[in-house]
Amino acid sequence: MKRYRNGEIWDFEHEMPVVGGNDEVVLGLDGGTTSTVCICMPLLRVADPFPDPLPVLARAVAGCSNHNSVGEAAARETLEQVMADALAKSGSNRSAVRAVCLAVSGVNHPTDQQRIVNWLREMFPSYVRLYVQNDAVAALASGTLGKLHGCVLIAGTGTIAYGFTEDGREARAAGAGPTLGDWGSGYGIAAQALTAVIRAYDGRGPETNLTSSILEKIGLSSPDELIGWTYADPSWARIAALVPVVVSCAEAGDEVANRILFESVQELALSVKAVVERLRLCGEDGKDSFPLVMVGGVLEAKKRWDIGKEVINCISKEFPGVFPIRPKVEPAVGAALLARNFYMKEFCKEL
Amino acid sequence: MKRYRNGEIWDFEHEMPVVGGNDEVVLGLDGGTTSTVCICMPLLRVADPFPDPLPVLARAVAGCSNHNSVGEAAARETLEQVMADALAKSGSNRSAVRAVCLAVSGVNHPTDQQRIVNWLREMFPSYVRLYVQNDAVAALASGTLGKLHGCVLIAGTGTIAYGFTEDGREARAAGAGPTLGDWGSGYGIAAQALTAVIRAYDGRGPETNLTSSILEKIGLSSPDELIGWTYADPSWARIAALVPVVVSCAEAGDEVANRILFESVQELALSVKAVVERLRLCGEDGKDSFPLVMVGGVLEAKKRWDIGKEVINCISKEFPGVFPIRPKVEPAVGAALLARNFYMKEFCKEL
Repeated sequence: MKRYRNGEIWDFEHEMPVVGGNDEVVLGLDGGTTSTVCICMPLLRVADPFPDPLPVLARAVAGCSNHNSVGEAAARETLEQVMADALAKSGSNRSAVRAVCLAVSGVNHPTDQQRIVNWLREMFPSYVRLYVQNDAVAALASGTLGKLHGCVLIAGTGTIAYGFTEDGREARAAGAGPTLGDWGSGYGIAAQALTAVIRAYDGRGPETNLTSSILEKIGLSSPDELIGWTYADPSWARIAALVPVVVSCAEAGDEVANRILFESVQELALSVKAVVERLRLCGEDGKDSFPLVMVGGVLEAKKRWDIGKEVINCISKEFPGVFPIRPKVEPAVGAALLARNFYMKEFCKEL
Repeated sequence: MKRYRNGEIWDFEHEMPVVGGNDEVVLGLDGGTTSTVCICMPLLRVADPFPDPLPVLARAVAGCSNHNSVGEAAARETLEQVMADALAKSGSNRSAVRAVCLAVSGVNHPTDQQRIVNWLREMFPSYVRLYVQNDAVAALASGTLGKLHGCVLIAGTGTIAYGFTEDGREARAAGAGPTLGDWGSGYGIAAQALTAVIRAYDGRGPETNLTSSILEKIGLSSPDELIGWTYADPSWARIAALVPVVVSCAEAGDEVANRILFESVQELALSVKAVVERLRLCGEDGKDSFPLVMVGGVLEAKKRWDIGKEVINCISKEFPGVFPIRPKVEPAVGAALLARNFYMKEFCKEL
């Protein structure tokens, strides 16, 4: 097989046995801000139903592949390496790959998509089908087993809502980062809580138990030390890790913490409603059923104060047909199912 | 004269003539996030009144000296260099210095203050008086000619309110950076405007003329390109530079822009009110007169939509004795006057 790029990443392929036609595989990648996961699955020719559990051949993990965060060269190398790892672990190689779905955060514009397709094209033989999507699309597919219909709400460190209609229209809301107002995210919740501590301390806001709880959690003795603490490492994930403290304070009755969570629920529900309305996922009468896939630490709290449940309550008041799904598989598996579904659709068209 | 540190920064001193007792000087430094200014002034023995204009011997400028932003070693080197430059330009040297007031952003805690005093102590003979303050204190002194009484409100890229009573109590509000809710700052105003553009675009918020005005200003064709634009360089000053666009839109009647400015006025006024109340600058009956020094690009708009004027209106409803001052000299001159006043106070005590 032709070597499509220089470098040692694909050296393992020379040591592999030749793979037969029955061993066709697909790759699904989920590239988030903290890590990148690649799943290698056999190409499932029969889909009704998919086997349960799904036959995952290998799973490989690497670091951040968001080109906005780490730059293009580093993102590309991470993606190439994690795909090579997954293929090597599967005892497979690039000639067995039929389709790749790369769902990566930071894909916000068709130009992002095209640039990444161009990289991938250099790595794989020309017959391999390549699909690039925002990572939210993989999360949706992880709840719908690869079907692009309905809406997904992700609320982890960041937040985004993304939706598709069966006829291929799509829409998104939020997912633009903290500067651009992702207010219901884990970062948003925790930053509001830190702000409330500062405002109570300097006399701009009411007293709150968030002060003692947050200071204890991060080992500081006074709110004015928070300024140095946030400057020292402004990474969003470090701040978002304070969400459980906010939930605990709210459960214990703290009014400020309750208001922050309540407003975050409204924000998250607003993102979903904006997508559902633009796509009319709820039908003309507003009552059609549609799936809402819920993903991310903020929605999975499983506490007494259950943010995910409150978001669903808020949405179902306006759209009673909302059908919440909490996926049993990870987004990278959703991406692999998408690769399979896209491939089979094009394959059937050609027959 | 003893050399207090290694390095070439102070080499110029060997080439100077010996300076007589009449040439005593003070140094005032204003270290902000974008630049650091050092002023060298003669030690004015008579203060009633100070000469007008004030006799500035030299002014030197360097880059950022906020230790939170550039690290301690770089901050220290910048501060040392800018003081050496100011002394060299004055034809003076360290043996002529009687007092130094270093007012630098990022001084938020007594430990910050002590650490910086320790650096300075290594640079100067032991008889030199050293004072370290938050940069807001120099801004206050620039409006009150070195008297620490009243409140200062700074609103440029960031915002802070800082106040002092005549008997030496002090208080501050805000000044904690965007993560910790400096909402009335230039960054805060512009980030809200960018957020409004995204929310209008994805269906979460009302339409606004901010969309076309901001996209035109920064040369983008679609709101989804804003995500890449903010990631590419998230520096606060770059975002805060959009404030004039928000003001123009508000003046042209855009409701979203008007709401953002109105809320920012409330936030800025709230910071001042919190300081005034904690220090009772307004006296027991709330009607005493106190100076409010107004500094920073957001407050100096001089447009039809005048943020500074609205802030004063808002404060004077609660505290009719507020006396606004727009300083005629820069904060580094305020720092030099502080150095002079602190020194003379201690000097008189010793007599």
